[in-house]
Amino acid sequence: MESSFKNHDCGLLTKEHVGSTVILNGWVRKWRNLGGLIFLDLRDRSGTVQVVINPEVSPQAAEIADKVRSEYVLAVQGEVVARSEETINPRMQTGEIEVLAREVEVLNASKTPPFTVADDTEVEETTRLKYRYLDLRRPVMQETLLLRHRAMQMVRRFLDEHGFIEVETPMLTKSSPEGARDYLVPSRVHEGEFYALPQSPQIFKQLLMVSGMERYFQIVRCFRDEDLRADRQPEFTQIDIEASFLETDELMAMMEEMVVRLFRETIGVEVERPFRRIPYREAMERFGSDRPDLRFGMELVDLSEMVKGSSFKVFASTVADGGRVKAINVKGRADWSRKVIDSWGEVAQQLGAKGLAWLAVREEGTKGPVAKFLSESEWHDIMKATEAETGDLLLFVADRPRVVNEVLGELRIRLARELDLIPAGVYKFAWVTHFPLLSYDEEEGRYYAEHHPFTSPVDEDIPLLKSDPSQVRAKAYDMVLNGYEVGGGSRRIHRREIQEMMFEALGFTMEEAKEQFGYLLEAFEYGAPPHGGIAFGFDRLVMLLAGRSNLRDTIAFPKTASATCLMTGAPSPVSKHQLDELHITHREQEISRQ
Amino acid sequence: MESSFKNHDCGLLTKEHVGSTVILNGWVRKWRNLGGLIFLDLRDRSGTVQVVINPEVSPQAAEIADKVRSEYVLAVQGEVVARSEETINPRMQTGEIEVLAREVEVLNASKTPPFTVADDTEVEETTRLKYRYLDLRRPVMQETLLLRHRAMQMVRRFLDEHGFIEVETPMLTKSSPEGARDYLVPSRVHEGEFYALPQSPQIFKQLLMVSGMERYFQIVRCFRDEDLRADRQPEFTQIDIEASFLETDELMAMMEEMVVRLFRETIGVEVERPFRRIPYREAMERFGSDRPDLRFGMELVDLSEMVKGSSFKVFASTVADGGRVKAINVKGRADWSRKVIDSWGEVAQQLGAKGLAWLAVREEGTKGPVAKFLSESEWHDIMKATEAETGDLLLFVADRPRVVNEVLGELRIRLARELDLIPAGVYKFAWVTHFPLLSYDEEEGRYYAEHHPFTSPVDEDIPLLKSDPSQVRAKAYDMVLNGYEVGGGSRRIHRREIQEMMFEALGFTMEEAKEQFGYLLEAFEYGAPPHGGIAFGFDRLVMLLAGRSNLRDTIAFPKTASATCLMTGAPSPVSKHQLDELHITHREQEISRQ
Repeated sequence: MESSFKNHDCGLLTKEHVGSTVILNGWVRKWRNLGGLIFLDLRDRSGTVQVVINPEVSPQAAEIADKVRSEYVLAVQGEVVARSEETINPRMQTGEIEVLAREVEVLNASKTPPFTVADDTEVEETTRLKYRYLDLRRPVMQETLLLRHRAMQMVRRFLDEHGFIEVETPMLTKSSPEGARDYLVPSRVHEGEFYALPQSPQIFKQLLMVSGMERYFQIVRCFRDEDLRADRQPEFTQIDIEASFLETDELMAMMEEMVVRLFRETIGVEVERPFRRIPYREAMERFGSDRPDLRFGMELVDLSEMVKGSSFKVFASTVADGGRVKAINVKGRADWSRKVIDSWGEVAQQLGAKGLAWLAVREEGTKGPVAKFLSESEWHDIMKATEAETGDLLLFVADRPRVVNEVLGELRIRLARELDLIPAGVYKFAWVTHFPLLSYDEEEGRYYAEHHPFTSPVDEDIPLLKSDPSQVRAKAYDMVLNGYEVGGGSRRIHRREIQEMMFEALGFTMEEAKEQFGYLLEAFEYGAPPHGGIAFGFDRLVMLLAGRSNLRDTIAFPKTASATCLMTGAPSPVSKHQLDELHITHREQEISRQ
Repeated sequence: MESSFKNHDCGLLTKEHVGSTVILNGWVRKWRNLGGLIFLDLRDRSGTVQVVINPEVSPQAAEIADKVRSEYVLAVQGEVVARSEETINPRMQTGEIEVLAREVEVLNASKTPPFTVADDTEVEETTRLKYRYLDLRRPVMQETLLLRHRAMQMVRRFLDEHGFIEVETPMLTKSSPEGARDYLVPSRVHEGEFYALPQSPQIFKQLLMVSGMERYFQIVRCFRDEDLRADRQPEFTQIDIEASFLETDELMAMMEEMVVRLFRETIGVEVERPFRRIPYREAMERFGSDRPDLRFGMELVDLSEMVKGSSFKVFASTVADGGRVKAINVKGRADWSRKVIDSWGEVAQQLGAKGLAWLAVREEGTKGPVAKFLSESEWHDIMKATEAETGDLLLFVADRPRVVNEVLGELRIRLARELDLIPAGVYKFAWVTHFPLLSYDEEEGRYYAEHHPFTSPVDEDIPLLKSDPSQVRAKAYDMVLNGYEVGGGSRRIHRREIQEMMFEALGFTMEEAKEQFGYLLEAFEYGAPPHGGIAFGFDRLVMLLAGRSNLRDTIAFPKTASATCLMTGAPSPVSKHQLDELHITHREQEISRQ
């Protein structure tokens, strides 16, 4: 071969190429020797093509090809030929043709890989993560990374077209104890001082608004040192957006348009606009969640008023004590056995409820522990409110309002999954609005910002910041999709006095506020424009676009739940010399010195 | 006003808008009250426009406008009117029109800023960095950030069109003592272990090649904890690129095309292609630098052969001892005084030379300390080699080869700047090729990788890796522009045995190599494709595009030479609780405990 490097892609060869001489590069997916003829499936980023080596045509190629194994990297030069009718493979993109090799060169050999490089490979995730470079060769992983790439480029194009400017903000920033736990970076030059990796570029993007940039965006890495759940990573990517001089409604409409285009241009799905808007309180009441999954019904129904005089004591006393009684209607499941229903009762208890009452509306009459206590009129009211019909199963929780919503909200989701009520390929977006600005932490005995301390209160609620902070509503909005929060934003405070009131409500002394955020407070005094913005969890968006359920499958080199990289072994011990230069010691060192 | 928010941009109003009613938002750049009429210059991201408030037309607006000061944020509603012939301001983009205000609203007030927000403001850089949000309001800074944004989008578009996929690589990675000093991040979950922030995604991008991604790019933050020079930042941005199955020449051609388009589309400059290629050795010989500035001549001329028998003992003995004698021709400066020449001699000494010999070719004869020692034929040879004519000044350095090149190379640059020999608006690109693979560190008594340990040696030099490492040439190439290295790349090693030889040459034991880079060595055994790539210093590219000389002016929130952010105060002390969670203490804490 003149050059060993490809002039065509394996997966893109079609009947149109028949007769052409091509050079291909790729990995051996499969090989077999059928009576002297060698067949190789050669795979590159674009797909797979069958290569045939006939020792009578090319003895040199056959000699080499006879020794290749899975995952060898080859250069193949040959002619594209049409397959005969009976050998056409309709399941293969390139199944109408094959490449008759004239020359074969081994660009690199491969040991037997620890798992088969294929979509349907059976292998533990830990092995996949250790050999991530092999895992990423699987077509499904390549497609996900390609989708991620396309999504990024599309979002940037959209924002660029809408006048947003991409500005990079620092990664080595100032630690702020408010919010999640920071990752810290010891300073070598300034002994005893530390940088923090950003949890988000929130303050920097606001300062860019004070700088008059007007419209900013960034697709940016953020860091939170929290205990990880399945859908969290210590470092994650955010589409970060901020705008001045723009009504919140205009920004929200623009973001809808962006997401609609994202879904259209990456996966060809048409999403309906405008997105439904649901106030926080309504979302909690009807779905038991501030990120409701709207792809199915089974809404929570408040029965408190109907059962407050019930002879079923649990219901009556709960309402009397300020609690609530709510139910969901599990359509057509009145025939569930006691055992099945009890297992859901256990789930409810694990979720924090004292128990799960039920009512099965069967042809032969209503069954369940609650049934005998209900008066005829109570029974009718409940049936009407829950739209229950013969065959339905009602599940009740009576408890403090928060517990009722949380437990029934979660049961709603789990039942829908279990019963396969969630239609595939449906994307139900909504905005959840009017969040509370603050939430009270009973343990800590103080208020925390529900979104973050820079969120603007609703104007008419500002006086409540001093008198009744828990009643203050925020100018905040979350974009939710199919039960996930995909984005969250707000109008920001842009006046020093309001920001100071906010810090006060959060229990900061003025000194603490100045020490932590003095530069922001000061910036607000030099002509800060009205501004607001939003941030999208990009990893999660890609996960939903790709139809995956594991966030790690959308990230090239993710970390495990204990924040470890199984491939490189990070984090790892470092030399004493390195720590000395940073003026720090770690506990083990200290202990060994004692 | 129905809405206070803008429907037009200040700087984009033209005569075409005359008669329209507009709402503008912006900052007060200047204001003046001329006999009751108030004139405001209102500035937003797009530019500045003059607003006129006539108390007879709008008393309310006049009352408000009378109280505004510099950097107040306003909403102005009014009518665009043509200026009269005599009030047209040709120096202003919008100088043909003005806006006659009907309503004025103060969106936010401003204290008197610490410096005037204008391009020609006189202020210390430290003050600009402390109040960066005001500094960034200056049009020149906004233009630079906008240029940076456009450059980023253009590069991404180009790479996307050429089949490169943007993949995000981790920020929390494994520390590697090879290379520059790492920034470390203590792990909370794994006591005594640390992440490192990436100096570059080098290994990850190579593993993406092993993953079969074929073409990767990323515009990515990198970190080096080094003592900072004027053109270094602890965190910097890199355009990171890697490709498999691509000849080096093809990659280089593609990168040229990218850079040509970058200059065309951002600043409208046409750059010539193909770029000149200069082998490293030639660059050092002729320009005394591996990043030669080709915008002017004054090349270094080797005279060693001509003067080895000279009666000027310094020349003869230097050559005899294996040293070199080289000169530069400072055209037309034979008339420089002894004092001026001596001052350059001092510079040469500061740069490491023992002294600077000189020869002034004057009408009345050749002057200088060397003159009388030269024979007629030596004099002729030197004149011819240096292309010296009457009126020229020759400067000589005789020393070890490295010192001669370094000193004369640096003198060449400084003289050109001093003498204004560097033409403005000229962009001379070149590739420097055939770098040595390794350089010997006398102090440490070991070899270091000139680029990095993953650079492939030239094939025929591989045996020298064991016998004579300093003679091994690398398949490396730097892109240089006007005396700056803007990008550096290489073909990479993709075979385990070569990579192991490389680590050996660098003084690693096999155990050390495996501990640090075992996962890469292992990856090479599973079908690593031939690959190579390049990385561009994006901050520096933007600096050159913007025609600036200070790297900090191209970064929104840069750090000082002591790696401090003057605005936020990062780095800063953190709480003992934070350090306890990370299992570390810093030295001051320890001392205070004793």
